[in-house]
Amino acid sequence: MVPSSPGYGTPPNDSSGYGKPTTAYHHGRLAEAAVAAGFEALAEAGPHGFTLAEVGKRVGVSAAALYRHFADKDALLAVLATESFGDFADTLRDASTASGPDRLQAMTRSYLAYANEYPARYALMFGMHRDQGKYPHLQRAADRAFHVLVDALGTPAPSLPPEALEATAVQVWAQCHGMASLRTALALVVEPDRLAALAVAAVTAIVERPQQAQAERPLP
Amino acid sequence: MVPSSPGYGTPPNDSSGYGKPTTAYHHGRLAEAAVAAGFEALAEAGPHGFTLAEVGKRVGVSAAALYRHFADKDALLAVLATESFGDFADTLRDASTASGPDRLQAMTRSYLAYANEYPARYALMFGMHRDQGKYPHLQRAADRAFHVLVDALGTPAPSLPPEALEATAVQVWAQCHGMASLRTALALVVEPDRLAALAVAAVTAIVERPQQAQAERPLP
Repeated sequence: MVPSSPGYGTPPNDSSGYGKPTTAYHHGRLAEAAVAAGFEALAEAGPHGFTLAEVGKRVGVSAAALYRHFADKDALLAVLATESFGDFADTLRDASTASGPDRLQAMTRSYLAYANEYPARYALMFGMHRDQGKYPHLQRAADRAFHVLVDALGTPAPSLPPEALEATAVQVWAQCHGMASLRTALALVVEPDRLAALAVAAVTAIVERPQQAQAERPLP
Repeated sequence: MVPSSPGYGTPPNDSSGYGKPTTAYHHGRLAEAAVAAGFEALAEAGPHGFTLAEVGKRVGVSAAALYRHFADKDALLAVLATESFGDFADTLRDASTASGPDRLQAMTRSYLAYANEYPARYALMFGMHRDQGKYPHLQRAADRAFHVLVDALGTPAPSLPPEALEATAVQVWAQCHGMASLRTALALVVEPDRLAALAVAAVTAIVERPQQAQAERPLP
């Protein structure tokens, strides 16, 4: 929570017309409004076209006012990526309540559907991975999403040691990410609506591979 | 080939010191030099930090001189992406000369090694996919790389109909792309040098799946 600052806020029903737009927010509300506007700006311009100036314009404050809450553009993007990973993890977790082989199918389809519905968020989430060390909240949110998958693969009967489970999750994740991020390119080769079915078949092959554990042995 | 323009070029041994740097190139050589410098600028700044001004600086001409050869920054990037796809296809084709199951392993490892050695080129190649319609050379180069994989999967004995072969290639490609582009993120979970072995195991599972053809049936 951002602490409120007495004297900075203006009641929402202020309509004197004198205040600058900044005065319409107390600290907490401006940060919240910036995050909401940030999601809009992200959806419109993508992670690389994203600017604090545009976010400021949308909430009616200067970029300078935003700097009171966010060290820089990347700090706001990290908040957006963190929240997106949270949503994404919830989506995967909801899908993981299906039972048996349906679970893997439901999770794979949910993964691709999320990436397809929120392409800019998805690109941001995975584009900011390299900065995880700088943003521990982001790292934790990404870890949580990954472990929803690890947990689902190990439930109900973890037939593999935890290390092999994580290795399998890495393969499944890579398959889903590849399908999600190559969607446009792959659509030149196969019908876009077949991609999810192909992803499901691939992750099933990966997970059902009898000797998955051989991935643990160094290859020749 | 870019036709040479009489009167524009200056002999390479001109050392009068009067000519602007632009006069050191005739048309063909400037375009070539811009591509070479473009690769350097790309490696340094990545696709999103790439500017024609930086390329001009490296070859000693103004951005305006470059516009005689490239309609805009994206046109030069498309040339770089096209050449990169050509190299990439050659790399995959060289790896595909291995025989039997080694072929798939060699191709997977070559794929990941290329992405790891040339991260900016790799990001550019797949980042520009959406503009393929605008750059037919780029589209053809990308298609060629993809079909090196399709051909390798169907050699020597194409046990699958062409459509199923392409579908399998899509799954293998997605697996490799996922591993390549999540390298940094996945390295938090498994040792980076295990990623290639995991990718090999995953693509093997995908390709060896007995009923791969079931991916052709609509899923429930």
